[in-house]
Amino acid sequence: MFRKAIEQMAPYVPGEQPRPGQRLIKLNTNENPYPPSPRVRSAIVQAMRGETLRLYPSPGADDFIAAASERYGLPSRMIMAGNGSDELLAMQFRATLGPGDRVAWPAPTYSLYDTLAAVQEARVSAPVFGPDFELPLEALVAARARLTIVCNPNSPSGTVTAQRTLARLARKLKGRLLVVDEAYVDFAEENALDLVRRMRNVVVLRSLSKSYSLAGMRLGLCFAHNEIIEQLGKVKDSYNVSRLAIAAGAAALRDTAWASRNVERIKRARAAATRRLLTMGFDVPPSSANFVLARMPGRNLGPLNAGLRARGVLVRYFRAWPDAMRISIGTPSEMKALFDALEPLAAKLTSAQRNGRSRS
Amino acid sequence: MFRKAIEQMAPYVPGEQPRPGQRLIKLNTNENPYPPSPRVRSAIVQAMRGETLRLYPSPGADDFIAAASERYGLPSRMIMAGNGSDELLAMQFRATLGPGDRVAWPAPTYSLYDTLAAVQEARVSAPVFGPDFELPLEALVAARARLTIVCNPNSPSGTVTAQRTLARLARKLKGRLLVVDEAYVDFAEENALDLVRRMRNVVVLRSLSKSYSLAGMRLGLCFAHNEIIEQLGKVKDSYNVSRLAIAAGAAALRDTAWASRNVERIKRARAAATRRLLTMGFDVPPSSANFVLARMPGRNLGPLNAGLRARGVLVRYFRAWPDAMRISIGTPSEMKALFDALEPLAAKLTSAQRNGRSRS
Repeated sequence: MFRKAIEQMAPYVPGEQPRPGQRLIKLNTNENPYPPSPRVRSAIVQAMRGETLRLYPSPGADDFIAAASERYGLPSRMIMAGNGSDELLAMQFRATLGPGDRVAWPAPTYSLYDTLAAVQEARVSAPVFGPDFELPLEALVAARARLTIVCNPNSPSGTVTAQRTLARLARKLKGRLLVVDEAYVDFAEENALDLVRRMRNVVVLRSLSKSYSLAGMRLGLCFAHNEIIEQLGKVKDSYNVSRLAIAAGAAALRDTAWASRNVERIKRARAAATRRLLTMGFDVPPSSANFVLARMPGRNLGPLNAGLRARGVLVRYFRAWPDAMRISIGTPSEMKALFDALEPLAAKLTSAQRNGRSRS
Repeated sequence: MFRKAIEQMAPYVPGEQPRPGQRLIKLNTNENPYPPSPRVRSAIVQAMRGETLRLYPSPGADDFIAAASERYGLPSRMIMAGNGSDELLAMQFRATLGPGDRVAWPAPTYSLYDTLAAVQEARVSAPVFGPDFELPLEALVAARARLTIVCNPNSPSGTVTAQRTLARLARKLKGRLLVVDEAYVDFAEENALDLVRRMRNVVVLRSLSKSYSLAGMRLGLCFAHNEIIEQLGKVKDSYNVSRLAIAAGAAALRDTAWASRNVERIKRARAAATRRLLTMGFDVPPSSANFVLARMPGRNLGPLNAGLRARGVLVRYFRAWPDAMRISIGTPSEMKALFDALEPLAAKLTSAQRNGRSRS
């Protein structure tokens, strides 16, 4: 009934979403611990006036795009809205990759890319990041992929590749597409939007899920040369962004002060969390995102993750990467709860490690 | 940069959406002229409490699915939610069709199917409906397509194929997939949901855009055997339905009395419109949808469509089908405005026709 590639592939598994009423400290899917701008709520209520929910939304999400155009200084024809940046990623794969076509990204990164490549039956080149998560630039160029993706800041490492390096990569790709997935970029010090203005093969993706606290609304943005936007439009659902999402997105982008204040709070908590994790014996690459990666190279952190879960704290643990866990940055009180649960568990682990070493 | 098939294909063009402030009688995209249940609005406001928009929605749209399960008497594992039924259609094409695979449907029908087939590089068999829009059953079976779709009631004809005929088609397809696109079925007298219970190769799609007046929210439902739902899940965006859409959909399905009342009003207006159009000299196939098709076989209705537009009335005119126009059923006052504009235009057309005939 289905394509063989679909029947054979494993589904993407998103991070655990607690059911309503489950009381958990949720540091597993990089949500913003602070609420969205109050203007978002007003805009949604306003958008329900006049009973317009019965009417289709604007196919081009016009008001949201207008707000994005004002905010980012790019013309509307260079911007497309998505039902989350996940939808925009899927559209990018769908529009560019047929069976056997090559896609490349540095690994480890957002595991959804693997799922999207499997759906398209694309071949994957995934050279690993160098020490300190340095971009494997030459290997990415050598892959000669139709589509190259760099998640920047990267998940789950939190590390960032400098814009000048991305510009170099884009040039060396000689007209082949480079997608910079900037879901976390508002927590970093620079971004690649300027490359979209200068280069015809660069696509930048943004999300309103993290810095704008709107994961529940599903809002993403794609910036690229208008010819790219036009082709992507052919694989877009006609009305992919709802009336309320359009209103919410426009209101959020028009209140960047709100988002910036929350971003600054999260950056401060990120610095404190990084220091504390280092003190506890974890390796923590410098993060430019709203999460940190805590590693104990060679140790299985599975039991520690289970221990946190038992104490009501969710972090993201990747089976493919058992010596690490990704911790979203929460409010100060959530971070306190995390560390209260984590410290005894980590102490047990490091003392076991010492004992293990002394025996060997 | 893009797949050749994408670069070469024409985009799907949705019906005109007037900009805010444009005062037009909008009978072109089959929206419901009545607002959604007031419970939808309350549910949306409720869903914004506790500032949960910062959190991802349930990946499986749990509460919406629970409401659908209660409403339609099928277990949750046999139901999937979509960002509109357009997304569910796209998922169905994506999961089943690779380059060169065959898809079949009776023509003319919803032109989005052509777009979705082009994206998948699928081969299309589109046998035409018989006289009085009778399903070309044998031709559909003979196509031996991996995927067969019947829009029922059909757009733009408004006509319906009996459930027993669809059951016969499903049996003759011998395990190959039959999708029954029931976007308009709440305006008809029967539906194919029972086939999903009995047959493992039948998928039924529903939309909340028409009977539930929620085109602006983007909500669709897919009913099928749980093994089908599982495979479709692999090509679904993780969080494809927003928190507010989940809340709105659940509330709408729990107030079917509201939708039923509006459906009855629309059916009455449909009967009146059909009678009047017949009197005016149009051919009107009996409609089981929230629109009627008005035809003057062999005449170009382009000028008539333009005349209506100039008088502030939008109907749907298909260039590929110049002797017809599809008219959504509006409120009684909208229908009055339509006929006030249409009657002089149609009289001119039919008198021109008579003159044309007398000369020939």
